[in-house]
Amino acid sequence: MAKKKINVGLVGYKFMGKAHSHAYHDVSMFFDMDAEPVMKVICGRDEKGVKAAAKKFGWKEYETDWKKLVERDDIDLVDITAPSNAHKEIAIGAAKAGKHVFCEKPLALNVADAREILEVVEKAGVKHMINFNYRKAPAIALAKKMIDDGLIGKIYHFRGVYLQDWIIDPEFPIVWRLDKSVAGSGSHGDLNAHIIDLARYLVGDFDCVVGMEETFIKERPLTEIGTTGGLIAKATGGRGEVTVDDATLFLAKFVNGAVATFEATRFAAGRRNHNRFEINGSKGSIVFNLERMNELEYYNVDDPAGLQGFRLIQATDPSHPYMHAWWPAAHIIGYEHTFIHQVYDLLQAIANDTMPMPSFVDGLKCQEVLDAVVKSIQEKRWVSISEM
Amino acid sequence: MAKKKINVGLVGYKFMGKAHSHAYHDVSMFFDMDAEPVMKVICGRDEKGVKAAAKKFGWKEYETDWKKLVERDDIDLVDITAPSNAHKEIAIGAAKAGKHVFCEKPLALNVADAREILEVVEKAGVKHMINFNYRKAPAIALAKKMIDDGLIGKIYHFRGVYLQDWIIDPEFPIVWRLDKSVAGSGSHGDLNAHIIDLARYLVGDFDCVVGMEETFIKERPLTEIGTTGGLIAKATGGRGEVTVDDATLFLAKFVNGAVATFEATRFAAGRRNHNRFEINGSKGSIVFNLERMNELEYYNVDDPAGLQGFRLIQATDPSHPYMHAWWPAAHIIGYEHTFIHQVYDLLQAIANDTMPMPSFVDGLKCQEVLDAVVKSIQEKRWVSISEM
Amino acid sequence: MAKKKINVGLVGYKFMGKAHSHAYHDVSMFFDMDAEPVMKVICGRDEKGVKAAAKKFGWKEYETDWKKLVERDDIDLVDITAPSNAHKEIAIGAAKAGKHVFCEKPLALNVADAREILEVVEKAGVKHMINFNYRKAPAIALAKKMIDDGLIGKIYHFRGVYLQDWIIDPEFPIVWRLDKSVAGSGSHGDLNAHIIDLARYLVGDFDCVVGMEETFIKERPLTEIGTTGGLIAKATGGRGEVTVDDATLFLAKFVNGAVATFEATRFAAGRRNHNRFEINGSKGSIVFNLERMNELEYYNVDDPAGLQGFRLIQATDPSHPYMHAWWPAAHIIGYEHTFIHQVYDLLQAIANDTMPMPSFVDGLKCQEVLDAVVKSIQEKRWVSISEM
Amino acid sequence: MAKKKINVGLVGYKFMGKAHSHAYHDVSMFFDMDAEPVMKVICGRDEKGVKAAAKKFGWKEYETDWKKLVERDDIDLVDITAPSNAHKEIAIGAAKAGKHVFCEKPLALNVADAREILEVVEKAGVKHMINFNYRKAPAIALAKKMIDDGLIGKIYHFRGVYLQDWIIDPEFPIVWRLDKSVAGSGSHGDLNAHIIDLARYLVGDFDCVVGMEETFIKERPLTEIGTTGGLIAKATGGRGEVTVDDATLFLAKFVNGAVATFEATRFAAGRRNHNRFEINGSKGSIVFNLERMNELEYYNVDDPAGLQGFRLIQATDPSHPYMHAWWPAAHIIGYEHTFIHQVYDLLQAIANDTMPMPSFVDGLKCQEVLDAVVKSIQEKRWVSISEM
Repeated sequence: MAKKKINVGLVGYKFMGKAHSHAYHDVSMFFDMDAEPVMKVICGRDEKGVKAAAKKFGWKEYETDWKKLVERDDIDLVDITAPSNAHKEIAIGAAKAGKHVFCEKPLALNVADAREILEVVEKAGVKHMINFNYRKAPAIALAKKMIDDGLIGKIYHFRGVYLQDWIIDPEFPIVWRLDKSVAGSGSHGDLNAHIIDLARYLVGDFDCVVGMEETFIKERPLTEIGTTGGLIAKATGGRGEVTVDDATLFLAKFVNGAVATFEATRFAAGRRNHNRFEINGSKGSIVFNLERMNELEYYNVDDPAGLQGFRLIQATDPSHPYMHAWWPAAHIIGYEHTFIHQVYDLLQAIANDTMPMPSFVDGLKCQEVLDAVVKSIQEKRWVSISEM
Repeated sequence: MAKKKINVGLVGYKFMGKAHSHAYHDVSMFFDMDAEPVMKVICGRDEKGVKAAAKKFGWKEYETDWKKLVERDDIDLVDITAPSNAHKEIAIGAAKAGKHVFCEKPLALNVADAREILEVVEKAGVKHMINFNYRKAPAIALAKKMIDDGLIGKIYHFRGVYLQDWIIDPEFPIVWRLDKSVAGSGSHGDLNAHIIDLARYLVGDFDCVVGMEETFIKERPLTEIGTTGGLIAKATGGRGEVTVDDATLFLAKFVNGAVATFEATRFAAGRRNHNRFEINGSKGSIVFNLERMNELEYYNVDDPAGLQGFRLIQATDPSHPYMHAWWPAAHIIGYEHTFIHQVYDLLQAIANDTMPMPSFVDGLKCQEVLDAVVKSIQEKRWVSISEM
Repeated sequence: MAKKKINVGLVGYKFMGKAHSHAYHDVSMFFDMDAEPVMKVICGRDEKGVKAAAKKFGWKEYETDWKKLVERDDIDLVDITAPSNAHKEIAIGAAKAGKHVFCEKPLALNVADAREILEVVEKAGVKHMINFNYRKAPAIALAKKMIDDGLIGKIYHFRGVYLQDWIIDPEFPIVWRLDKSVAGSGSHGDLNAHIIDLARYLVGDFDCVVGMEETFIKERPLTEIGTTGGLIAKATGGRGEVTVDDATLFLAKFVNGAVATFEATRFAAGRRNHNRFEINGSKGSIVFNLERMNELEYYNVDDPAGLQGFRLIQATDPSHPYMHAWWPAAHIIGYEHTFIHQVYDLLQAIANDTMPMPSFVDGLKCQEVLDAVVKSIQEKRWVSISEM
Repeated sequence: MAKKKINVGLVGYKFMGKAHSHAYHDVSMFFDMDAEPVMKVICGRDEKGVKAAAKKFGWKEYETDWKKLVERDDIDLVDITAPSNAHKEIAIGAAKAGKHVFCEKPLALNVADAREILEVVEKAGVKHMINFNYRKAPAIALAKKMIDDGLIGKIYHFRGVYLQDWIIDPEFPIVWRLDKSVAGSGSHGDLNAHIIDLARYLVGDFDCVVGMEETFIKERPLTEIGTTGGLIAKATGGRGEVTVDDATLFLAKFVNGAVATFEATRFAAGRRNHNRFEINGSKGSIVFNLERMNELEYYNVDDPAGLQGFRLIQATDPSHPYMHAWWPAAHIIGYEHTFIHQVYDLLQAIANDTMPMPSFVDGLKCQEVLDAVVKSIQEKRWVSISEM
């Protein structure tokens, strides 16, 4: 019997558009699927660009208007990788058209928008997933399993940092990620969003937060915002104000009593993509670092005295989450594999009529924490998540 | 103008067959190609198996007889991932049919066969490449560039190990890799072949060697050899003799005066795929470890006194070899990317009528070293490569 | 000409008393001194204990009353390693008797006391030093020199943690360090004091802070507090309240605009003595970890593109601070060497009539930050150091 | 009751003389001793130098003729840190005078001399110990205990390197360590001696070896050999031949069937004192690196599937060998502590009339392996230890 097909329409064709395209392109080659993904339509405003992307990435057709895309009868799933300020409109449009929705993070620019989106998709009864793709790194999925199995015990501490350095040069120009009207925020929404989600995934819900932010370089060369999707942009002369945070730090308390530090920055010289967290519990500790994403460090308080130490697990055995689909042990996987795993979980959920995880509920809850931190910075005080 | 097409015929569909298939599947999505690869035909003896693989991996057609494959007019390139003992016949058949040939390592079971293959491909005037894919890891390609640029100076030392542990359990059965008639040798041809090639690539040609080998577990459970391509096999009852080496170690001197230790083993508990080497020269040192294949350690003797130290380079910047095609800095790549880079170089060479590297010349030279080590073990003496 | 002698009187003979004793015992063997330290008198309340310590550690005499010690004519320097709540009385007594004073950290239990002590020693015109011994680890002294030389540029970030796990077992009893009346605070004064001082030393003065604290285990077995100086104590039956913090975390802004996270805890499973910080500046980054205290990681933004990476400096070359006195390069030193370096600096300062560093001024400034964090926790708000 | 005293006479006052002096100076402060060491006499040929050393290091008296030293009635133990070519004469002289003998490695310049020394000390009935001090690093003593307890199982592999880089500059002059008539050999006797001893200690006796050596820089600036004890020497004009090996590599088989690679070099740029070995057995693996001498890596094949990995043990807990005498967990110790532990074992053995370990038997056995390697190089063949 032929498998059910899932026709995908993708909005966006830059960095994230490519990563998502590749996931659909490769997923069936490695995983046994309960439905067959079809790379039907890719959509972007610039016809020349989107046409070339369709050819390069393997999409059958292209559109230049997302509204046409979501109205097409032959699309089952709309995947949104457009800049953050476009998420709401497209997600709501797709859901109202009865399409399943897969959206890049952050879900929206603020809690109100995120809540509205969630209400619409729930009312529409479609599947919804947000792309917190690092959940799908085998080492992190393993960490989750270990925590659920009780190996870490009661969690006392989470400390997470997401450190980059791509704008440390004061002459790096203002790209869209440095424009609040497009990106919503800077390091906070881009980087803290990831570690907030990982903390929620692994530790639980947040109780309250207090934060601070800093924009170290307040003016930069201007560029044509909007026409540049990636990190590279040409200066257009003149200087403009940087309207987002370069770094945002906060303290947090979780509902279960754990305490935490969080820090996102684009000014950590030498840290290219350093998403690292450590969790300490009554039974053990775990450490993850995205730059060595195939590894997980684990300390077990019950190891024999004198033989205790952090263990370097290579999360590449066939027994580790998702790794049965790949190569023999210690043949490592890379960044884009997290997208393949995410898309695998999404397509399987659609095929089997279950809700994929993380869903827009997770997208909203992450947004609540992000906004609570911003409020805490504005009002210079502790803010409870329940205020949001 | 439409690009030239290169029709590929692949022999083998197990571990290596899948890795090669994926490379053809993905290469155009990330690299700008001067010719377009077409996944034309996959070939395997078991019709059911090869048919399923063709569908799963994206091949248009399949064959069950490699002889038919090499005779087809619509095939430009024959890619050989069959077990080692089949390489010679297929490579020669393909070359005589005027096809370009891409062959898994080792090129042959011995020097005589390797030399014969090389003569045939050279006479046929076809392109030939051997899959020493680790040369194409960006960190290793960077190491090569650094050495060529003189950053390491005169090389004094190479020390390479390739450590695995997948047969440390005495009850692990006899799969084809443990059968000399199929695999040629054990850890030596499988693992030392890789580090010998890397040493030749980075340091230069070998002068002489002396070695030793050991088979720690001399009898193991029997299985049906030949029907199993991977590392997993079912025991069929009874025990048989292990006819290959579990570990092979040797000392070497290079033509340029550098000295070296080499060691391959499948009995290093905890080392899943630990292909690590260190090079020390008059100007600096470099260290590579396949388990952290996105990294290269580098020591520069000309760094200021008091500030000297091994530098951990993440070979993931767009400026690093092959990395412009992938993600932003420090978004790591994985094992299969080395195959994509290899196939990229191969297809570009065919498109531009140049010889790809490494070629069968490298395959032969590696085989000369492998065989010299074996001779040295048999005769308990130093053996010069010129004797081979 | 005979060297001037400096007669030392030491108060306390437990963990810190031993570390200080050893420093006086060894310093002349490795360093060329401008004065000769004499291990004159050790002082402790328990006669049997202090007598044994005098013999074991090499002190000529002992006293059981610190008041007698500070009044002796033959004492030049009083070294205080008694529990924190005794620092004030002894330091003031010694200074009023005209003795130089060397005091363990923290200087006092609160800012008011610290300020009073500082006033007395300044009025007395004696030398005063506080034992923030980690400043004297060669790797940290090197970091200071690198920052002063401009190698790190403008500092953007400091992130420091001091993680231990020695009370993670809920049945570990209440020793003096868990009793607020003796210790002043828990992880905060014990551990954050160290990283606050290092941050001040390397980054500069604090502007404002906001913090949180947690006592995860609120009741523990009782023991005889006061008779136990070390970490080991016998339970005496019953349970008592833990009156200090298990963990204290805070955010900070420095006067120069840098931002920071700080965290001290005794509940980080597997972290025995993990005092680690990272500094990111416009020119580079540095990382230190006390558990590998002979090493300093350094990233230089001016390294050539493609060859950038964190450099692992072994701060063990004779050119590194203090290391000319020790062994050849890469023959590492240990924990107690920081005390020897501290004592060396102290004795040289006395011999040459200069003020040693860090002085009680640093002790007071550290206390101001400690107390500002406590105030911030009590009042749930940001607190400026200028309020203290 | 007063403890028995052990009067020590030390020959040599340079690098090793200082390290030994410090051990006697500190041992009683940290360890409970069954006898009391007395730093009685230090001996050196240069009166001014040895007099200053006596004062600096804390020796009561000095001598300029070792023959006088060994004849003194008030000396119980003669400790020899003179250059290698003087060991034999002094050791035999001391033993014949009825003194216990503690000798730096290597025991002698060749097997014949080593054997002669051993015969004399055995006939004299005195205690004898050779200073393979790395055996006394807590992490290595722990490794020994783990192996003896069966945690590693049957040993398959040992791979040891001892890498330094202090003569990589071709203008570094000829010091005594580069003169065969004084040092016996170069990297081989200096560095391989250490890893050969560690391999014997941890794995067992050697069966046979095959080796190679290289002198990369064959001529260097001349200096006054004999007047320089350390690594620093002034050139005296002209150039002379380097008569020792810069690097020596060899393969080995042990009596118990394990196989091994060994490598010593002074030409490994960036490796200051990199004494690293790895042992793989049927039950697990261990890794040690002297530059991080407080750590031991351990892999246990019996850890649960999916949670396996190399464990980083900080061998600094009070439960680890020798560490009860030092500081709380993770307060690391340094290079000279290995000498203190060695001297502790030596003095306790003398006090309790047992033979200390390692004894001159170990010195001889190490020399047999060293000489077998040299013979193997000269005769370009495998050499059995039984030939020596």
